[in-house]
Amino acid sequence: MSIITLCTDFGPYDSYAASMKGVILGINPKANIIDVTHSIPRHDITFAAFVVQGYYNYFPKGSVHVAVIDPGVGGQRYDMVLRTKDYIFVGPDNGVFSYILINQPSVCHEINIPHAVSATFHGRDVFAPAAARLSLKWDKSVLGNIIKRPVILDIPKPIISTRGITGEVIHRDHFGNLITNIPSAKLDAIAKNKVLDIFIKGVKIQGIRNTYEQCGNDAPCAIINSFGLLEVTINAGSAHEKLGARKGDTVKVLWK
Amino acid sequence: MSIITLCTDFGPYDSYAASMKGVILGINPKANIIDVTHSIPRHDITFAAFVVQGYYNYFPKGSVHVAVIDPGVGGQRYDMVLRTKDYIFVGPDNGVFSYILINQPSVCHEINIPHAVSATFHGRDVFAPAAARLSLKWDKSVLGNIIKRPVILDIPKPIISTRGITGEVIHRDHFGNLITNIPSAKLDAIAKNKVLDIFIKGVKIQGIRNTYEQCGNDAPCAIINSFGLLEVTINAGSAHEKLGARKGDTVKVLWK
Amino acid sequence: MSIITLCTDFGPYDSYAASMKGVILGINPKANIIDVTHSIPRHDITFAAFVVQGYYNYFPKGSVHVAVIDPGVGGQRYDMVLRTKDYIFVGPDNGVFSYILINQPSVCHEINIPHAVSATFHGRDVFAPAAARLSLKWDKSVLGNIIKRPVILDIPKPIISTRGITGEVIHRDHFGNLITNIPSAKLDAIAKNKVLDIFIKGVKIQGIRNTYEQCGNDAPCAIINSFGLLEVTINAGSAHEKLGARKGDTVKVLWK
Repeated sequence: MSIITLCTDFGPYDSYAASMKGVILGINPKANIIDVTHSIPRHDITFAAFVVQGYYNYFPKGSVHVAVIDPGVGGQRYDMVLRTKDYIFVGPDNGVFSYILINQPSVCHEINIPHAVSATFHGRDVFAPAAARLSLKWDKSVLGNIIKRPVILDIPKPIISTRGITGEVIHRDHFGNLITNIPSAKLDAIAKNKVLDIFIKGVKIQGIRNTYEQCGNDAPCAIINSFGLLEVTINAGSAHEKLGARKGDTVKVLWK
Repeated sequence: MSIITLCTDFGPYDSYAASMKGVILGINPKANIIDVTHSIPRHDITFAAFVVQGYYNYFPKGSVHVAVIDPGVGGQRYDMVLRTKDYIFVGPDNGVFSYILINQPSVCHEINIPHAVSATFHGRDVFAPAAARLSLKWDKSVLGNIIKRPVILDIPKPIISTRGITGEVIHRDHFGNLITNIPSAKLDAIAKNKVLDIFIKGVKIQGIRNTYEQCGNDAPCAIINSFGLLEVTINAGSAHEKLGARKGDTVKVLWK
Repeated sequence: MSIITLCTDFGPYDSYAASMKGVILGINPKANIIDVTHSIPRHDITFAAFVVQGYYNYFPKGSVHVAVIDPGVGGQRYDMVLRTKDYIFVGPDNGVFSYILINQPSVCHEINIPHAVSATFHGRDVFAPAAARLSLKWDKSVLGNIIKRPVILDIPKPIISTRGITGEVIHRDHFGNLITNIPSAKLDAIAKNKVLDIFIKGVKIQGIRNTYEQCGNDAPCAIINSFGLLEVTINAGSAHEKLGARKGDTVKVLWK
């Protein structure tokens, strides 16, 4: 049983995702197709890149992860297969796999799909058949030229000073939680046992709580989330809405 | 082939549901993961409890039903396995399985997952692995202490008088239908062949129709729905919107 | 492994789709249930008909396609099984399978499900069990009388003159693309190598582009889409919103 996950911005009601599923099952009838989401905000490659890094490594080794957020379909960007030690990724070479490229040794290839394809829907005509064939075995005929410099988004890194760390919001989730690029490992390494203040949008948050429940219900609160990242949350509300904060906003952690 | 259903409030676009699926497939590669929904309104345990009772018993015996609506994650509430004669339920002990606890003999256990888990995402770190292991076999090592008094929501019951039944709206569905807690079995038992008037929000509805089509297109209409419950509906519109009615509103059935 | 696809307007959060899945797996535990969508706009049979024709023939032969957009449930319309050479379709006889009926030789039967069913949810009580049984084998006991004249929607056809083609918008997709009923094959046959102007809502678009990327970012643009149909699009926006255009609006292609 080979697993193929699908992550797209095709939205909730069109036939696009289903036609990819049909193509996959036509090539590999035993593929176990797993819907990640088809509701990535339209054309938001940065959003999708964060989502992809959130699930890919919880799947069994050998899983094929397809992501189709593809505003440049039919244009200059490559159709890409990215292979790491444990996973295969299939999608456009537009940065959607940035976190994998940054964090994992990998090899990227253009995709060879011989027959004619539409210029507007490579999800169905290129990525679905490539993923299905790669899920059957490591099918070299799918692989074209090596892509030497795959596109990597400019993922912001936190900046460390003697008094603190300056990061930013990199994702807002469904609950309105503001996820930052500040990893708990870094905080542990340099600020262990220190008294921390967190600043966002002019608001000061004292200390980091262990659970959402400890946050109380209405106040902005800092937490280490399930990605191991610092997150600003409001337990019974939306930190995004109440703070008016969004992706790119600065978050500072200061100690004394 | 073991079935694991997933019902969450994780929303349409994050990685949370997918990471649960990955964890499940890593433990039980043959699990047949069935998406119920990931769009339960945020933290709405009562809503989810009604949804769960709507599907669980249509699945084959032995299915594992996971529900993660979990505002108290990491706090005092238990991680729970609930077992009935035919099904296994996995989720927080916060009332999400109330209808099962009320209607079925059941035994509840805390969950033993030995390794360290995040304090913010038991869906991925506790419920998914517990469900996967229980789907393989009835794995006693997953089971901790018995939970003697699992949380049960205060599900309102209809009140019967000599002239009628007073109930309330307990769920509004996607179509705007207002589902009440008045069962058709009760109406049959005490008001069979009587002429019935239904009152909601000051509006009087005469009689109960058999099909949506019989309702005509614009008038509020009463029907026995597929749950066997009295429902107020508007065939080509939303009873919720047109009547301004919502969960908790009183519904009376009177006869002469 | 038999494939059963589900396309409904049940919305994102109720138990209705899940209860269909449970019924299917109870009858055919090996059914591979594929979610197409449960977010077809409420009761919009025309919308669903277009979506169904977008995916059905990408699935392996023998797949069973279930579509439940069913405002007339429990009323006069038939419960229907439609069989073509390659596929089985299950749903109400209300036009949801119009494109298949128009384009494929087919035979339609009423559905025989002997036991009592609800008057309000044939998805769960008729279509799910019928689909599951037909997925196991071509089970004649499910088939009732032949339906001689199944309902076919009035799908508009483009009108050809000596100077051009007049069609209309037949679908708006998630990206706001305006999909017309003008097939590229027709344009190729009669306007090959001609200079084309496309008119919609008083706006003139010069020529047909090959890819979304060629469209530039803000201007209305014409393209042949992955259905092989003429489509009006705005690459970084919504043609639907910017042009104020919707289903039924006229689209003209003129040449000199």
